[in-house]
Amino acid sequence: MSRWEPNARGRLEQAAMELYLERGFEQTTVEEIAKRAGLTERTFFRHFADKREVLFAGQAVVQEFLVSAVADAPEAAAPMDAVGAAFEAVGALFEERRESVRRRQAVVAANAELQERELIKLATLSSAIADMLRRRGVPDPAASLAAEAGVAVFRIAFERWVSDTSPRDLPYFIRESLDELKTLLLCLRLGESPGGS
Amino acid sequence: MSRWEPNARGRLEQAAMELYLERGFEQTTVEEIAKRAGLTERTFFRHFADKREVLFAGQAVVQEFLVSAVADAPEAAAPMDAVGAAFEAVGALFEERRESVRRRQAVVAANAELQERELIKLATLSSAIADMLRRRGVPDPAASLAAEAGVAVFRIAFERWVSDTSPRDLPYFIRESLDELKTLLLCLRLGESPGGS
Repeated sequence: MSRWEPNARGRLEQAAMELYLERGFEQTTVEEIAKRAGLTERTFFRHFADKREVLFAGQAVVQEFLVSAVADAPEAAAPMDAVGAAFEAVGALFEERRESVRRRQAVVAANAELQERELIKLATLSSAIADMLRRRGVPDPAASLAAEAGVAVFRIAFERWVSDTSPRDLPYFIRESLDELKTLLLCLRLGESPGGS
Repeated sequence: MSRWEPNARGRLEQAAMELYLERGFEQTTVEEIAKRAGLTERTFFRHFADKREVLFAGQAVVQEFLVSAVADAPEAAAPMDAVGAAFEAVGALFEERRESVRRRQAVVAANAELQERELIKLATLSSAIADMLRRRGVPDPAASLAAEAGVAVFRIAFERWVSDTSPRDLPYFIRESLDELKTLLLCLRLGESPGGS
């Protein structure tokens, strides 16, 4: 019964992504994914809890990568620099897997439930980054704000990158969004009446 | 059968909140809410689609309020000023209903599903604000970033306000977080190596 299946996980991911794009996430069953990959359902469930996890398993790796990057930033790095550099690095990682990241995004964008799951995962990511900033001695609310700003910049940069057809890469869009956010806040005249005199 | 029930909606909200706090959201049924309010289930469903909607119906009002405030900002107002002032105004509104807002928050904080729903509503709110900024002529990514930054600032200020026991009000925490985000981004040395020489 139990055979060694070379790269079973990768084959399942590949099969699932093909089917999600062909028929939609809702319409695809685990049975079909296993069949397309030439594997059994039992093998599927050895790797993934359900068909949704195929899309989100990678996020644990992304989170680990980001949190480590923030942890490893030079001690003197300002919080936003540590967070910005971490997201740029993850952007470069995504860029290397450009096609598979975009395929996954197309599946998520087509399904409201998956979009909600993505939001929840991003909130978890933001909390994990804020925790690491606190461990680096950044007080609140700065730690939470830097993490939230990083996630917001990444989300918006990612959307622009996905719909962009030029050769500009994801780290470019992350830098652009971070720079734009800086400009927006530089223009903020806190406490003065907006547009006054 | 059909009687005029004075302030049925308010009574249902009050009863629901009491029960959610006493027994938890999961353990409360619509039947119990109606009974506690001295009304029928039929009356409940005339006002709310389900027991979750009792907690989220107010968000449509908040969204409408915020989007209008952004729309009504002086033409010369910078995007972040328009967004910041709108959230400060909504903060003042929440402050007026301090106890009921905090009771609702306690219910949401105790339930993972409700927290997820809150995240989704905040994402919808952010999109609606970004749309209004675009209508005011703010280009992307600035429009999306200003909206996301506003929501992030509000979320973090709200959390601090909820757990704070001093008399400082919600608009105070919103200004504090906005100012902190500005400081964080002023320290950003984009493009230079973080912490370098």
